[in-house]
Amino acid sequence: MTSNKPKIVVLGAGYAGMMTTKRLTQKLEAEEAEIVLVNKHNYHYQTTWLHELAAGTLDPNKVRMLISDVIDTSRVDLVHDTVVEIKKDENRVILENGELEYDYLVVGLGFEKATFGIKGMEENAFSIQSVDSSRLIREHIEYQFARYSSGEDTNEENLNIIVGGAGFTGIEFVGELAEQVPKLCKKYDIDRKKVRIINVEAAPTILPGFDEDLVDYARKSLEFRDVEFRIGTKINECKPDAFVVGDDNEEIKGGTIVWTGGVQANSILGKSGFEIFKGKMNVNTDLRAPGYENTFVLGDCAWVMNKETDRPYPPTAQIAIQEADTCANNIAALLRGGELEEFVFDNKGTVASLGGSHAMGTIFEGKKLYGKTARAMKNVIDNRYLFMLGGPNLVLKKGKLRPF
Amino acid sequence: MTSNKPKIVVLGAGYAGMMTTKRLTQKLEAEEAEIVLVNKHNYHYQTTWLHELAAGTLDPNKVRMLISDVIDTSRVDLVHDTVVEIKKDENRVILENGELEYDYLVVGLGFEKATFGIKGMEENAFSIQSVDSSRLIREHIEYQFARYSSGEDTNEENLNIIVGGAGFTGIEFVGELAEQVPKLCKKYDIDRKKVRIINVEAAPTILPGFDEDLVDYARKSLEFRDVEFRIGTKINECKPDAFVVGDDNEEIKGGTIVWTGGVQANSILGKSGFEIFKGKMNVNTDLRAPGYENTFVLGDCAWVMNKETDRPYPPTAQIAIQEADTCANNIAALLRGGELEEFVFDNKGTVASLGGSHAMGTIFEGKKLYGKTARAMKNVIDNRYLFMLGGPNLVLKKGKLRPF
Repeated sequence: MTSNKPKIVVLGAGYAGMMTTKRLTQKLEAEEAEIVLVNKHNYHYQTTWLHELAAGTLDPNKVRMLISDVIDTSRVDLVHDTVVEIKKDENRVILENGELEYDYLVVGLGFEKATFGIKGMEENAFSIQSVDSSRLIREHIEYQFARYSSGEDTNEENLNIIVGGAGFTGIEFVGELAEQVPKLCKKYDIDRKKVRIINVEAAPTILPGFDEDLVDYARKSLEFRDVEFRIGTKINECKPDAFVVGDDNEEIKGGTIVWTGGVQANSILGKSGFEIFKGKMNVNTDLRAPGYENTFVLGDCAWVMNKETDRPYPPTAQIAIQEADTCANNIAALLRGGELEEFVFDNKGTVASLGGSHAMGTIFEGKKLYGKTARAMKNVIDNRYLFMLGGPNLVLKKGKLRPF
Repeated sequence: MTSNKPKIVVLGAGYAGMMTTKRLTQKLEAEEAEIVLVNKHNYHYQTTWLHELAAGTLDPNKVRMLISDVIDTSRVDLVHDTVVEIKKDENRVILENGELEYDYLVVGLGFEKATFGIKGMEENAFSIQSVDSSRLIREHIEYQFARYSSGEDTNEENLNIIVGGAGFTGIEFVGELAEQVPKLCKKYDIDRKKVRIINVEAAPTILPGFDEDLVDYARKSLEFRDVEFRIGTKINECKPDAFVVGDDNEEIKGGTIVWTGGVQANSILGKSGFEIFKGKMNVNTDLRAPGYENTFVLGDCAWVMNKETDRPYPPTAQIAIQEADTCANNIAALLRGGELEEFVFDNKGTVASLGGSHAMGTIFEGKKLYGKTARAMKNVIDNRYLFMLGGPNLVLKKGKLRPF
């Protein structure tokens, strides 16, 4: 595809990149711009569902969809490649197998694992990061059970699953494990009491930022299903079979170790010479990179300030999806001439699933939800995104429709 | 349960032990004898289906059933324990957690892997032996795929599955793999061409003992689905990642290595001082151990001579099941006084499944069957056993009812 039309290149088909591309095809006429979407895989996946994949409670194909099934390929050129570097002063992107020039760039490259220099964490812990890395966890867990039940491995401690980090992902993950482990125990004739699910967190509480009532509810719900918490417990080192914690270097043993304790922006931004602050880029309120009027940075790569609290918004799917709207509007304004808009977050609430029919969270003006009501609301939120992306057909194909 | 009734102890709930116990409850009145069935697990499984479990084409729970679901527990005392030794001259059996006295003993302890002293085979190869050992293979294979697709393991050769032995189990297993591997490739976005299924056999043909036409059909059917054969190839050694074969010590590499090349009788018999010949016991034609008039040895532990060919019958489920009938009749004769009968094998034919809708074999007077007809017949044979064991309900619950 060559033309004299302005060329918009979108990097990454995560929540931010997919929704921006979708909105651009809706807001722009075909003759206004050429649109290119670059992604490593030919599929888009729901990052917020990966913990279910990692625990084994959701089928991998429910979590992903072919990009070409939801993006109009007569309007968008899909490039299946990996980004190496952004030549920001030359308006070029270097890919592993080629390069692309752009007039407008949208960076939605997502997060990477951040291990804060904890010794051995990078090498020894799994992370819930992609479809492939998540289902590796699921297979690894089941492999431990199969090895134990067959007598190939007689070390009971290898059945333990230890999870570093009690933020959103860590808690949602142990919630799924609490549902999955009894099923695996039954399948492999292993006494449930032999398998420990241990969550280790340095902070004094799980789910920092959530209301105390909700945190209490979550913790009790999980402990009732035999999840163990080691809160206020600093991880000094991750060995192949243990977290080493606390002042006395106690070892918490497990055959499966998962780190959910931190994320940082994709390292491509830093490598490309953009200024990075705490692993992310401070973007302008119109979502553009400071000093680069044709470059938007969205999602987990961007710090967007919340003016009310004077703190940056956390990296969530909800924010990435809303940023996509602002970004598409602003690109249209740049093409057509007009005012750029500021990003304003419309908080629709946050619900954390705790496995099975368990969940909790807030919606609207801080209204608290618990249990099955929260779980149902979580599904509504998840399905709403699918509806925006691909209409009712996508909800039917990939939505969460099972009753709880 | 203590009584003055004669006590019949059956060791092992495989095909021979289960059917003998079942027949004893049918042929004897409750007051005639006390019946005890000893088994390691609380379930019985279909050894002839384990290759499907190992490949991942059959659910583990389809292959097994609770013993108490098919054996009348008001008539039979189920002992969940492992046999350590038979004190044959004292009429006692030593178990891991106790011991049992008997008046009549039925030994149906099944087979163990025989590796013929091939270096490294015992340590490095999986075997299709029990529910637990078989599903470990399935999990191991899938784990290799997950590791490769996630980039955790970049060695393509680890996707290869190498199978030693082209007898019944080895061939049925590669047949299932031929069906399963394309599914795993799709699931993990791996090119099918990257995965090799290699069967290695020292003999000059696969399926020795089968008619040449059938062997040809099987080989072509499997090669068409990309199974590779290395026939007439002697395995010198099994390394953790390879078979070392032939005069030039060629290495055939794979991340999953399965040995199906040989079985021998359970080693308890030898340990207990019974005379063993080529790993099995030559039993009398009434199925009793020579010199022990109250002890029957059945199934894979026993050599029973075929008078027509003057060679022992091969270790098959069909023979074990028929032996159970003779054994139960002979125990009844011993209890009531009467003639003991000789075991006569009624060959109902043998069908080998080759995966999916593929199969081949002979029925009745050597009539050859191929393809879907053979596959359908295989299911009939499998379901017939379930019918004998547990009636129509068991066929409905555990039978092979999917159409091919």
